[in-house]
Amino acid sequence: MELDKYFIKSELIPAVITDYKTNEVLMLAYMSKESLELSLKTGETWFWSRSRKKLWHKGETSGHVQKIHKMYSDCDNDTLLIEVEQIGGTACHTGSRSCFFNEISLEKKYSQEEIK
Amino acid sequence: MELDKYFIKSELIPAVITDYKTNEVLMLAYMSKESLELSLKTGETWFWSRSRKKLWHKGETSGHVQKIHKMYSDCDNDTLLIEVEQIGGTACHTGSRSCFFNEISLEKKYSQEEIK
Repeated sequence: MELDKYFIKSELIPAVITDYKTNEVLMLAYMSKESLELSLKTGETWFWSRSRKKLWHKGETSGHVQKIHKMYSDCDNDTLLIEVEQIGGTACHTGSRSCFFNEISLEKKYSQEEIK
Repeated sequence: MELDKYFIKSELIPAVITDYKTNEVLMLAYMSKESLELSLKTGETWFWSRSRKKLWHKGETSGHVQKIHKMYSDCDNDTLLIEVEQIGGTACHTGSRSCFFNEISLEKKYSQEEIK
């Protein structure tokens, strides 16, 4: 499969990882061409760790791998969306199910009443 | 509100945009500190267009704005998750509801049977 098209803008492509049943966004991480090849071959997510500067098989140590159910690219092929089954139930190293647990207070917020 | 912490690694922070009702991932775009401030002030998403190198109020021309319901940052504050109501029903300039419509064929795929 021709993967070069995903790495035209950058050597790394962001991958949004979601739960294949609920659509919940679990995390965002970056893939190199090599890690994307490994992901497609193994059916489990591999990323490029920007902090450790190395290939990273998500869950290799903890056993909390992500089994890939579906993968999409966006309209201009610079972002991936990957629907996974998160083994162990937690995607975040903090132990949280999803990495996105810090709610940001909104100065102006639309409530259900305003939308109607 | 102190926003500097979101721009330590980069001047731009990726923002995953989801539908506030269904969790469907609509798009990923980048915010500058200024566009994030505008988003928080107006309750609608503003991004930094990397291709046009300018501030971008999503939907300003088409009317297809995104009304912000909730906003989260991830565990290390380098990614945002924003739950929106997508006015007009389409987030993608192609007319598609979501930008993520290019399905990628998987060499090794987990089916329902294999998971069980």
